[in-house]
Amino acid sequence: MERFEVRTKGHTEFRDITAEVQAVVARTGVKSGAACIFVPHTTAGLTINENADPDVTRDIIATLDRMVPWQQSHYQHSEGNSAAHIKASLMGFTTTVCIEDGSLALGTWQAIYLCEFDGPRTRQAWVRVDGK
Amino acid sequence: MERFEVRTKGHTEFRDITAEVQAVVARTGVKSGAACIFVPHTTAGLTINENADPDVTRDIIATLDRMVPWQQSHYQHSEGNSAAHIKASLMGFTTTVCIEDGSLALGTWQAIYLCEFDGPRTRQAWVRVDGK
Amino acid sequence: MERFEVRTKGHTEFRDITAEVQAVVARTGVKSGAACIFVPHTTAGLTINENADPDVTRDIIATLDRMVPWQQSHYQHSEGNSAAHIKASLMGFTTTVCIEDGSLALGTWQAIYLCEFDGPRTRQAWVRVDGK
Repeated sequence: MERFEVRTKGHTEFRDITAEVQAVVARTGVKSGAACIFVPHTTAGLTINENADPDVTRDIIATLDRMVPWQQSHYQHSEGNSAAHIKASLMGFTTTVCIEDGSLALGTWQAIYLCEFDGPRTRQAWVRVDGK
Repeated sequence: MERFEVRTKGHTEFRDITAEVQAVVARTGVKSGAACIFVPHTTAGLTINENADPDVTRDIIATLDRMVPWQQSHYQHSEGNSAAHIKASLMGFTTTVCIEDGSLALGTWQAIYLCEFDGPRTRQAWVRVDGK
Repeated sequence: MERFEVRTKGHTEFRDITAEVQAVVARTGVKSGAACIFVPHTTAGLTINENADPDVTRDIIATLDRMVPWQQSHYQHSEGNSAAHIKASLMGFTTTVCIEDGSLALGTWQAIYLCEFDGPRTRQAWVRVDGK
């Protein structure tokens, strides 16, 4: 398993980490297999979505903010960041992507995003590569 | 990794692909292992849910439509299908199911659904089988 | 693949199953690999989130209840538990966690939760461990 750091710059931000994950895959020399990507946090998650128009991730972020407002009277968690915990669970913390010919087998428009919901912070992504 | 096509018929549709995934598993001859199912899209996702009463997936679709309306004034993505991108990320793009005795180890009421959110289109599902 | 039971006590409850999953990993003797955890249900799901302050999972539960109310006039499923099906799909049914030195490689604040949305019931969690 390899770890790398992701320094997020905003409070809420989808950071494309596809190139970093691909670099881990390349270092292992695995040509055919699978990469399991894992985010070891509880206020940042992981998803896949469009890599072309940045308005897509902006729209996802804005919609999640409407679905899960930062301030809600029923929140009890003393750190005040319950919305970040909820949004991270909605996106999830892990994804598995196949490897073919040494490359991540993603769809044409897909990128892997670390989803920061309570930044800016120094986050981590962990990648485990299996195969040969 | 094997790929198969799924032709969706409606704009929003949960298509049960369990039989197609099981057929891939059977072709590999793997008796004990795991199948990783992956959807290479950004406006279609993947989930597991009930296989018995079709009202369940209808209720999921209708509720997602209320949570993430197709038209919202804050959407900026020019293709106009931001809701589909968001709902796909909420469902996810990948799932891993164990294989026992050559069959997908699913719960009694579980089926694997490709979740079309911007159809009808010809979609793909990719399946990687590991084991022996 | 090993199975274990989880007896939930409330209608909606996030039950920390990290110790049970770790016990399965220990029994396999695998030191380096991955554990795939799977919930074979359609009204209970699986997520990862904070293990320290129980207010976090309480806030997640309360927010999901607001996003997906138990009673909505458009629900058609005759069992009346459509909200549980929807919330389970939002959380997901499977997660993969790496194993290092014989232990689940989780972040400091992470625990694995079985998410009961229509209890109390006797639920199951399935764990497949790969590695050596």
